[in-house]
Amino acid sequence: MARTLYELCGKDPARLFSPYCWRSRMALAHKGLSFETHHWRFTETDKIAFAKSEKVPVLVDGENVVADSWAIAQYLDAAYPDAPSLLHGRPESYHFITSWNDAIVLGGLVRLIVSDIPKILNDEAKPYFIASRTARFGMPLEEVTAGREGRLPAFRQSLQPLQRTLAAQAFLGGGQPDYADYIVFGSFMWARGVCPLPMLEPGDAVYDWMERMLDLYDGMGRRTPAA
Amino acid sequence: MARTLYELCGKDPARLFSPYCWRSRMALAHKGLSFETHHWRFTETDKIAFAKSEKVPVLVDGENVVADSWAIAQYLDAAYPDAPSLLHGRPESYHFITSWNDAIVLGGLVRLIVSDIPKILNDEAKPYFIASRTARFGMPLEEVTAGREGRLPAFRQSLQPLQRTLAAQAFLGGGQPDYADYIVFGSFMWARGVCPLPMLEPGDAVYDWMERMLDLYDGMGRRTPAA
Repeated sequence: MARTLYELCGKDPARLFSPYCWRSRMALAHKGLSFETHHWRFTETDKIAFAKSEKVPVLVDGENVVADSWAIAQYLDAAYPDAPSLLHGRPESYHFITSWNDAIVLGGLVRLIVSDIPKILNDEAKPYFIASRTARFGMPLEEVTAGREGRLPAFRQSLQPLQRTLAAQAFLGGGQPDYADYIVFGSFMWARGVCPLPMLEPGDAVYDWMERMLDLYDGMGRRTPAA
Repeated sequence: MARTLYELCGKDPARLFSPYCWRSRMALAHKGLSFETHHWRFTETDKIAFAKSEKVPVLVDGENVVADSWAIAQYLDAAYPDAPSLLHGRPESYHFITSWNDAIVLGGLVRLIVSDIPKILNDEAKPYFIASRTARFGMPLEEVTAGREGRLPAFRQSLQPLQRTLAAQAFLGGGQPDYADYIVFGSFMWARGVCPLPMLEPGDAVYDWMERMLDLYDGMGRRTPAA
């Protein structure tokens, strides 16, 4: 059965950098499901109109079309109940880590990396990205990230709940990763793909966890180009 | 079978204010288990020496003695598997919310309320509490909480991941509360018992959740004296 994940990429198709697409990419690997990537770039909305979505990820699994990373995670557990579980039958218990990740990790990282993102985009995507994000922040993207080296310690400090957890267990899911890990990992893969700043420091429990995550599934994360 | 929970109280035995004891109190109610409270006060270490613990909560359940709120939660799920589950067989998935609560909620609240705590303590406990907490903070407790009204907005802002989650579902556990709810609820019951400041504001999703939590189990929380 043909299985395709529509994933955001940069000018270089190997540069997969969407935090949400990484959630789905890892979820598919967790389930042991092979897939092909359809490389998608900002503004190519006509290519995913069939999914009634304007954003990726979009999963086409045989006759099933699923848009949105959260819907994809729930779909995979329902469609492949015999494969390792992503959400352990309790999707509601993953809302808090999602909210925390989106507010603190994505919200913190965007102010460190957003001005780097245009550099990796194809020429058609650049003006769209710059205009939409400049409008969102109400200032030029270089102003959003100004002084970012000095803000790195505060960002790392905001990860304290993650550090405490990962000092006590290998993964957010416990001894094995689950969808909670993929949610947070996606955020750091976004940063890794576009920005050379070291978001994490060696010796930190989150750094060690990230190394373990990069190694999963034959180094799927590690093999993806970093900035 | 006799079941007793050793719980921290103030000079007034009805003033139950330990965040950790509240986790166990709610966990017992969640399980539908009746219990008696043995009122325990700071410095009464001889009274819980039998449990090889210097802190409460301590649960005595027939012949079983369990110290520490986290151990109690796991014990209750193991000993009463037919009662509603607290941890849904996945205790490892509750570590992150615990870490977040301890760092952000308890860590934020203590700097708003610690100078109020001696006011509700019995005379024997006061000097111990003041000395130990003054040493921990390296300053008088009134200095720790100085300017606290001005810091309330920042504290409320730090609850954003909780707000996002509770705007989408009634409880952290989903449609029904689970141990994640009791962990965070215990923190707010601690503040409620000792400090008159309004930590939450009407109209906020966390405020509404707290109201629901106070109503649980015949208003067990609401019937407990507030500062």
